[in-house]
This record gives sequence, C-alpha cells and structure tokens, in this order.
Amino acid sequence: MLKGYTLPRTPRGTSSLAPNPPWHYVGNALAVEYEVDPAAAAAFLPDGLELASNQCAAYFIEWQYSSENAEEYLDPVRSQYHETIILLSAKFEEQPVAYCPFIWVDQDVSLMRGLVQGWPKQFGSTWITRAYDLPSKASPVVGPGGKFGATLAVRDHRLVEAQITLSEISDSLPSPNFAKAVNVRYFPELALGKHDKPAVHEIVQLKSRDVKVSPIWKGDAAIKIFDHPYIELPDLRPTEVIAGYQFSFALTVDDLIHLRDLRTDA
Amino acid sequence: MLKGYTLPRTPRGTSSLAPNPPWHYVGNALAVEYEVDPAAAAAFLPDGLELASNQCAAYFIEWQYSSENAEEYLDPVRSQYHETIILLSAKFEEQPVAYCPFIWVDQDVSLMRGLVQGWPKQFGSTWITRAYDLPSKASPVVGPGGKFGATLAVRDHRLVEAQITLSEISDSLPSPNFAKAVNVRYFPELALGKHDKPAVHEIVQLKSRDVKVSPIWKGDAAIKIFDHPYIELPDLRPTEVIAGYQFSFALTVDDLIHLRDLRTDA
Amino acid sequence: MLKGYTLPRTPRGTSSLAPNPPWHYVGNALAVEYEVDPAAAAAFLPDGLELASNQCAAYFIEWQYSSENAEEYLDPVRSQYHETIILLSAKFEEQPVAYCPFIWVDQDVSLMRGLVQGWPKQFGSTWITRAYDLPSKASPVVGPGGKFGATLAVRDHRLVEAQITLSEISDSLPSPNFAKAVNVRYFPELALGKHDKPAVHEIVQLKSRDVKVSPIWKGDAAIKIFDHPYIELPDLRPTEVIAGYQFSFALTVDDLIHLRDLRTDA
Amino acid sequence: MLKGYTLPRTPRGTSSLAPNPPWHYVGNALAVEYEVDPAAAAAFLPDGLELASNQCAAYFIEWQYSSENAEEYLDPVRSQYHETIILLSAKFEEQPVAYCPFIWVDQDVSLMRGLVQGWPKQFGSTWITRAYDLPSKASPVVGPGGKFGATLAVRDHRLVEAQITLSEISDSLPSPNFAKAVNVRYFPELALGKHDKPAVHEIVQLKSRDVKVSPIWKGDAAIKIFDHPYIELPDLRPTEVIAGYQFSFALTVDDLIHLRDLRTDA
Repeated sequence: MLKGYTLPRTPRGTSSLAPNPPWHYVGNALAVEYEVDPAAAAAFLPDGLELASNQCAAYFIEWQYSSENAEEYLDPVRSQYHETIILLSAKFEEQPVAYCPFIWVDQDVSLMRGLVQGWPKQFGSTWITRAYDLPSKASPVVGPGGKFGATLAVRDHRLVEAQITLSEISDSLPSPNFAKAVNVRYFPELALGKHDKPAVHEIVQLKSRDVKVSPIWKGDAAIKIFDHPYIELPDLRPTEVIAGYQFSFALTVDDLIHLRDLRTDA
Repeated sequence: MLKGYTLPRTPRGTSSLAPNPPWHYVGNALAVEYEVDPAAAAAFLPDGLELASNQCAAYFIEWQYSSENAEEYLDPVRSQYHETIILLSAKFEEQPVAYCPFIWVDQDVSLMRGLVQGWPKQFGSTWITRAYDLPSKASPVVGPGGKFGATLAVRDHRLVEAQITLSEISDSLPSPNFAKAVNVRYFPELALGKHDKPAVHEIVQLKSRDVKVSPIWKGDAAIKIFDHPYIELPDLRPTEVIAGYQFSFALTVDDLIHLRDLRTDA
Repeated sequence: MLKGYTLPRTPRGTSSLAPNPPWHYVGNALAVEYEVDPAAAAAFLPDGLELASNQCAAYFIEWQYSSENAEEYLDPVRSQYHETIILLSAKFEEQPVAYCPFIWVDQDVSLMRGLVQGWPKQFGSTWITRAYDLPSKASPVVGPGGKFGATLAVRDHRLVEAQITLSEISDSLPSPNFAKAVNVRYFPELALGKHDKPAVHEIVQLKSRDVKVSPIWKGDAAIKIFDHPYIELPDLRPTEVIAGYQFSFALTVDDLIHLRDLRTDA
Repeated sequence: MLKGYTLPRTPRGTSSLAPNPPWHYVGNALAVEYEVDPAAAAAFLPDGLELASNQCAAYFIEWQYSSENAEEYLDPVRSQYHETIILLSAKFEEQPVAYCPFIWVDQDVSLMRGLVQGWPKQFGSTWITRAYDLPSKASPVVGPGGKFGATLAVRDHRLVEAQITLSEISDSLPSPNFAKAVNVRYFPELALGKHDKPAVHEIVQLKSRDVKVSPIWKGDAAIKIFDHPYIELPDLRPTEVIAGYQFSFALTVDDLIHLRDLRTDA
C-alpha cells in the first residue's frame, strides 16, 4: 500500500514531493500595481473568465513553508523559495477574481504544490531586497524613503525589474490580489490522438485560511518587462505604473473550490 | 483560445512549460545493475504490479532534448539536463516490466514532461564523468580500463555514488531497462475530504519510438546509497552489485499506453 | 589606463568583480558555541598563532551587501549571499584573537572580497531559518521557544547541521567572534619551482567600523558535523556544545592591519 | 605546519580550494572569430600591451579537470565546469600574444586556479550544445550542416549568444587563441591608503604542456552581445563576424612565465 500526496508514492510516504496538506506559508512581499493593454490582458484569460479591468499586479515574495508536522523550516532547503507572480483583474460569473497567467518559483516542492492548485508554475530566478533591523548602507528602512528592488530571470534572460520607494502606510493590499484568485488545473494526456484532450482541465478557486497580514507600506514604483524569445510576459508590459507595496503575509492552504470543468467532452 | 500542452497556457502557446510532443532525446548513460532485498523492493510496487526479481538498475544520464521544431538544443539551457533513475524488476499481468520508484532531474521542463508520463520526478543534483576524444589525465577512455563515476545529491545530502570500470563490449543493455517501463500517473485533488481521491491515478506503459543505442560497454561496478532523513531510497540498498555499463541512446516520445485505472471509485 | 579594485580591470572599472572599498554589510546570524579536541584545533593554526582555548563557534549568516555608491541591494543578485564561518580561539603575541580555518559562501563577489581579507573562502550551500513578523507554523518566533536551523553542504555533501532553541536575551556575542579576527592572506606562485613560495603570505587582522548589533538571543543548541571525503572540518567535531545565538549585525570594511609577513625569504 | 596550494591551508592539505599543480584539462569548445572597433579593444589592454589587430575570439568550453593524483573526474562535481572566454589580439614587446579582458566560469575551484594564472575570472552561466554519437533531432552532427549554440548569462542577464554551422575541417585553430596568452596577475591591498597599491600586479604568460587538439571543424557563425548594466563586454560588440569553430583540446598547466612587474613602486 503506497503512501504519499504526490509522486513518488512509497511505503512510508515520506518521499512524496509535496506532503499532505495543510501547507503553511509565510512570506515577505514586494508588489507593483500597473496597467496594461486591455486586449492583451483579455487574450490571456481562459474560457469562463472575462476581463474586469486592465489593472495588473506583480508580486515578488521570499517564502518560508512548513507542512503540518515536519517543521521543514528547520531544514530550510526544504522550506524556503522565491516566487514572482503576475495577476490580472478578471470576472467569473460576474464576481471579481484575480487570474494568474505567469508564476515562477525556484524549488520543485513549490512547483508541485502549485500545479495541484492550478498555478502555472515554472522555474525562474527571483531576487528581492531584504530589510534588516539595523541601520546600514546595505539595507533599506521599512518606512518613508526605503527603497526596495526585485528582479526575475527566466532561462538566463532577465525578464522583470521592479523598484519601490516607500512613503506611507496603506489601508489596503495591492489589487488584484490572492484572495479568491482563480486558477486552471490542467493535466494533459500523452496517448496519441489525445494530446489536446487533457485528463484534468477545470477552473478552480483558491481557498486559504488563517490569513495574516503585516502593516502594508506603499509608495512609488517602477517596473520594466524585458523582451524574451518565447515567454509571452512582454505582451503584458506596463502602460502605466500605479503604486508599489511592501508587506508580509501568512496563510494556510488545505482546500480548493471546483468552479467549472473545461473538458470539452465532460 | 489559449494554447499550450501544459500550463501556462497562453495566446500563442510558446510559454507552455512542456511543448507539444513529440519529444526527442539523446543521452550519455552510466548504469549499475545490483540486487536488493526482495521484500524491500516489493514494498515499492503499486497495486497491479508484482516483483519479478530482486535485480535493480540505477541509471545516470546526461540528456539533450528538442521538441519537433524549436531546436532547443541551440539554446541549451532549454535542452540539457541530468537525470538519475532507479528501476525495479516487476511484472504486470505476467509480463515483465520495469518500474521506477525514484527519479531525479535538474530542469523544470524535464520534471513536467516526466509527470505527464508518470515518472515520479523530483529535483536532484546528478554529476556524471564525461569521456572526451583526446588522451588526458582528466578523462577516461571509452574502452578497457576506462573509469567513470556518477553521484546524486538530493536537498544537499549526497544520496548515491557509483563507479564503473569498463572491460568489454556487451551485447545487451542493463536490466531492468526503459523498454516498456510501467509508471503510475497521479494528480491529486486538493478539495477538503478528497486529498486521497486523486483526479488521475492509473498505470501506464511508456511507448518510445526511433530508439537508437550506441555500442554498450560493460565492466565492474560499485554503488553506495547513503542515509537520507526522509527519502526512502536507502531501503533499496544493494545487497550485491552485478555490473556497470556505459552507453548512449536516443529515443522519441509522443505516446503512452493506459493499462489500468487505479481510482477506487473509477 | 585600466581601473578596478580587482580583476577584471577595464576602461571604466565597473566590471571589476569586487569594487573599491568601503564595503557595507548587514546580516542575520545564527551561531553555535562548542568545544573541540584542543590538539585538533591547534593543528589548524598558522605559524604565529597559538591556541587560546578549545572553544569554537560556527556562524551561519544571511548577508546583504552594498558598496559605497552602487546600491547593489536594489539588484539583490549582486548583493545577497549566505555564509558559514568556523572560528577558533587563538592568541597572537599574547592577545586573544579569533582564527578562521573554514568559511563557505555562495557568490563570487563575496569570495573575492574575502580572499583580499585573507578569509579562506570556498563555495558551499548554506541555508538558515528565517523569522517573519507574523504568527505562522512556517516561522519561529524571535523569543523564548523559537527554533532555528542552519545547514551547510559542500560539493553535494551535507557537512554541518545546527539547531538552536532561543530562551533569553544575552548581554554578549558568541565567543570567539569577528572582532579583531586574524586571517592569513595567501596568493601562490605558479612558476615551476615556486609553487611553495607564495607571492603573498602574511598574517592580517580585520578592522571593521560602524559595527551595530541587534538584541542577542541565546539558548540551547545542537550541532552535527558529518564526514567529508577531503574537507577536514570533521577534525573539528564538537566534543561539547555550549550555546546557540540569534542576532543581526552590520559593519563596514575598508581597512586591514598587517601583522606579520610569513614568507620564508621575506 | 599547514599545507595547501591555496587557502584554506590545513593540517593534511586536502581542503585547499585549488590543489598543487599540475592541473590537467580536457574540453569541448565552440569558438567564434569576429572583429571589433580597434579603439574599443585597445582601451582594454593593460600597460605593456599594444593592439595587434581588431580580431577577437569568443570561446565557450565544457571542461573536465583533474589534478595529478586525485582523479577528480570520478567525483565530477569537483571536476566539470563551463567557461566563456574573450580574447583580444595584442602584442608584447613586438611578439603577438592573446589577451583576455573577460572570462566566466561556474565553479569556485576553477575561479581560484584562474586567479593564480591572472585570468580575470568571474561567475557566469555558460551553456553549450553537445554532440552525441547517435542520429537524433536532439543533437547536431559533427560534420557539414551541424549546428551548435552557446550562451552566457552574467548575474541573471543574458550577455552573449552564439551559433555556428559547421561546413569543413580546418587546418588551424581560431585566432587569437590560448597559446602563449598573456594575463595580468593582480592581488590588491585592503589597508587604508593602499587600495590602489596592489601586492601583486604583473604581466605573465601562460605556459601549458601536453597540448592535444582534435580535428577542428569550421563554418559560418553568428554572435550577439547584449547590453549589460555594468559589465563592459558590450564595448567589444562585433562589427563583423569571421567564422565559427568546433573542436576539443587537452592541456596540462604547472608553470607560468613572469614578464613584467607593473607595480609602480616596484
């Protein structure tokens, strides 16, 4: 009797790439709100979603993670990873939702947990300025004038650079954000003739619990999206930058809401 | 209308982590045949498979890959990766098949193509001695006396070390091998109450075409499997080492055979 | 006229691996004090140093760095790195000093700055538990009961694992520590017959300024040093563990004190 | 009595980053000859060298290395690395020599061996198409029509892309090449007031022995050098591309020729 939430499934189940939920996360985030060409954004939405506005957000997060009992944060190569997420402003059945066309991480465990939730994760190299609790020319302050940077490279091409200068505390998170984000779970078939008939193809909505958010700092921002030979993120280049944010948040994931099966023969 | 064989699915479909099959592979391999405790090996087999013998093989491969038209090998960060594979000798409905309890790669594209085929891929750091076509103290000869090494580390722990000394040409590949290997495709649910009711759970058989094999060198081998705090590979420690191999092979994948649905409510 | 503090030296001097001092650093550190066999420790000391006691310290640090004007922390791939440092308790001319037999980092810029100061830097993979300012099962608290881990792997072998449980604020830093540490600068010759006649071989003392230290948390600790096939750190295995620490510190480096030329023909 | 060719120097001397010479190397290389603006090239030459022509060469090499007795190629994480080298056509005292303004590797051991020889090594990510001895859409042939690519990224920016299409066997290596290349050894001081008074600053000439070269394939080539925010390689952008090459070579290094001390007070 093999055990394990994902492959590899083994006698004791301790080898599984992603362990059983719940999954606990805490992260330091930088974010930039910006606007894009609405037609370009709409072209990235799956069947069932419509564009709600041309406002996007890019998040850069330095995560630490643990499952329920394994205390992975004490062996942090199992726990820590970096992430860049792009979110679009969409609607599903008239309800506003966020939709993620692109997301990059740097650990296989995170990739697998993401695929299960419908996050379209790939590997990318994300770097994020850290704040330290000491005055130093090597660290920004978390406060007015504090400058933070973030970068993403994908397959040895720098793809995104962002910079944020904090000015004030904000009452609200960036928008769009993770709350009730909608993803597409997708797992293809490989049998000949079925390459376009996936085994799993469905719209799902994220459901997190025990969400906690630090004070949210806001300020001016700049973001550049560079050319890439095949990654289509440059289609979502900023036409205008709105604001930047710095904050921390924590959440727990062990559930998901199925919204719609997209299999054409389902 | 989004395109792409896997997530992310995008307007032009060029961002998808794994592109449409066919997938073409060529690799330089080292392999070690060895025996393990039969009860330990049997414990790793999924429902539907039985142990055929206690003979295992470990493969260490330096791959280069291309899809049908993208010539990824010209931008080799998209194409090259290292892999360590463990194969067990199993039977499915009385037919001998190989079964893979563990496999490690070092590129996300390879991880995704693998999951679609049921390979239980995780990230690991594999290093393999290369042969060069020049006499040098820095290179073994591909011939009698040539010594090759391979190592695997997983999450910063060295897990496997192998060493092979070539002595003669062999008529046959190591056994078990990839031909008609059987995997389990598995894609879990995250909705509460369904964590153990996967969306996809089925036995499949690999189907490759255009397989080509170089001359196969064989010789003595040594292999060590070290302790690991949670990866269960040490349960499959060698009780006896049989032989080592060095060879190259090429193949194309664009098909898969469904053998049995393992979903309990299917 | 080429410019640059280190190679490569170029027309504008912006390509140099390490830029001109001053170098500003800020880091989050875990540390473990422990005792070793005194004869083993003494064997690692260079000519001119004597063992002061058998007390050692291992530091694990997540650094961010900037030079005077380049604000590298805004492009953090240029700025952030991890470090593991081992310090011994030594004396130079009857004055107590720390001496570093081993240090591992994960960025080339840090390696180069280190060599200039006599740090015997090599590459290693260091991971350190982070504290986040939010309650989460994925993060320890910085306070009583907070548990932190750190690991080091060198060339795909795990070499050190440490764990610390905080209990109280401490008045003092771990000992030995960085203040007035003594290193050996060493730059060999390659001309035949001169392989053991280095161009540079001298005892130097670190000189940092603008040192700032956060509150220092202290508690129980455990540390394991594993076997390695050629790195001699296991000679310095703990015979007893004293205490663990968690703190942040910042400093600036732009000076160094020459203590003694060790060239035999100098 | 501490031992070791470089830091760290230890009781048994097995921990030293670079071991005692001789160092044996074998590599598979791609190379592109091209022309640059002569004034730009001349600006990169150190005192004592003059520009001989505006012809440059970029080399991309997949190396394997061993010291005299340690057989590092059997534990290949110690042995294998990638390298990108740029060479200019210079003269020293009327003799033609190659001079290297930039070189990137991906292993610390290689960085250290390089610094000792005056190579201005930094870390970069180099990828090179491999040829396999089997027909496959995933591999070029080593022969007419075979296409090879190489890329370099530095600090998450793609900096160089090259592509070569083989057409014929060549009698000669690319020019400039490694034979008798001239480097600058440079090791700075850190004491205040001496930041521009290096301890070591001298022109040296490489001396390798037991050089062996495979058949040399030649053909058309393309090379692009992209913008970089601080690395000055784009100053050496191609004005014309001459030819591309594919070959293997082996060599041994245990000597170096001192040509001129550049210390101003020497």
